[in-house]
Amino acid sequence: MESEVDPGDSLYRTLAGAVVPRPIAWVSSQSLDGVDNLAPFSFFNVVGVRPPVVMFAPVDAADGLKDTPTNVRDTEEFVVNVVTMDLVEAMNETSATLPPGESEFDHAGLARAESTTISPPRVADAKVAFECTLYDFVDVGASSMVLGEVRFVHVADEVTTDGELDVEKLDAVGRLSGSYYATTRERFSLERPP
Amino acid sequence: MESEVDPGDSLYRTLAGAVVPRPIAWVSSQSLDGVDNLAPFSFFNVVGVRPPVVMFAPVDAADGLKDTPTNVRDTEEFVVNVVTMDLVEAMNETSATLPPGESEFDHAGLARAESTTISPPRVADAKVAFECTLYDFVDVGASSMVLGEVRFVHVADEVTTDGELDVEKLDAVGRLSGSYYATTRERFSLERPP
Repeated sequence: MESEVDPGDSLYRTLAGAVVPRPIAWVSSQSLDGVDNLAPFSFFNVVGVRPPVVMFAPVDAADGLKDTPTNVRDTEEFVVNVVTMDLVEAMNETSATLPPGESEFDHAGLARAESTTISPPRVADAKVAFECTLYDFVDVGASSMVLGEVRFVHVADEVTTDGELDVEKLDAVGRLSGSYYATTRERFSLERPP
Repeated sequence: MESEVDPGDSLYRTLAGAVVPRPIAWVSSQSLDGVDNLAPFSFFNVVGVRPPVVMFAPVDAADGLKDTPTNVRDTEEFVVNVVTMDLVEAMNETSATLPPGESEFDHAGLARAESTTISPPRVADAKVAFECTLYDFVDVGASSMVLGEVRFVHVADEVTTDGELDVEKLDAVGRLSGSYYATTRERFSLERPP
């Protein structure tokens, strides 16, 4: 199957099916009215490490920006919570479409924890959370690319070994296409050549 | 473990350990001298779907830009090849440091296939390849963020079912931290709420 891409095409299915497995940013943010928003995004990754910058890229809703990019643009603050197996059902609940003013924290029965350097709360049970301030906000056609600079890091002791994150203890979840997810439980190791 | 981030800190270990599993862009590019370069990058994801835009973000080498971002900046063309289980050893070989002028295709014994719309070759055995032109090149501290617009898509029939990419047949590989990788073989499904 080979195909030229027309500029107006959406390659959603092909890109979401081939660029796998994707890490999941479970982003908490706050509206100007003080409503705590929480939603998962899998067009997400690290961009830089010095300074530490991450990006996530929400596809626009039919009627404009989704709540999360709107909040981040307005307040310039957000938390990236890491999705682990114990939280995956709750994460899925937060992708529901809620009436304005209802928080996904409450809808999914998730406890909030105060952030240390910014206003939006983090997910209390998240094993890792990155408090971020807005680094850049870029329109890319019918998507937004949100870049955040990491200001504060929370890592639960139970997912570390000798002070380092332990991938086995973390038990993170990746996104595939359609309704599918992948665990990080089937692993292998390759030594990098010199 | 909680820590404030100093602007000069590198959060490499924490970010690479927590933002998992990461998809892998196996990027082929061409130098102005015509040498075909091929290297894996896991700070990679989709950015937008209309237009279709992907990003990868190489950390700078000690002495400046690595070969891939240099080539992409110079020629404004590259291919993102998808890494599947059958190619993972070859992918690892292409992360070796080679003398200037030696191609990773030859070093790893990989056949080239001609691209359709751009000059850099693609990996002949890759099941999926995206031919890209440069959309934007952004310096982010000691990293570069390369955005590419997808111009042409190659998908091998053997990884599709009814004309759509099939995650089981694709058998893609994700990056974890250290020397670890994850398969996409342990999957589960969650129906998204309305």
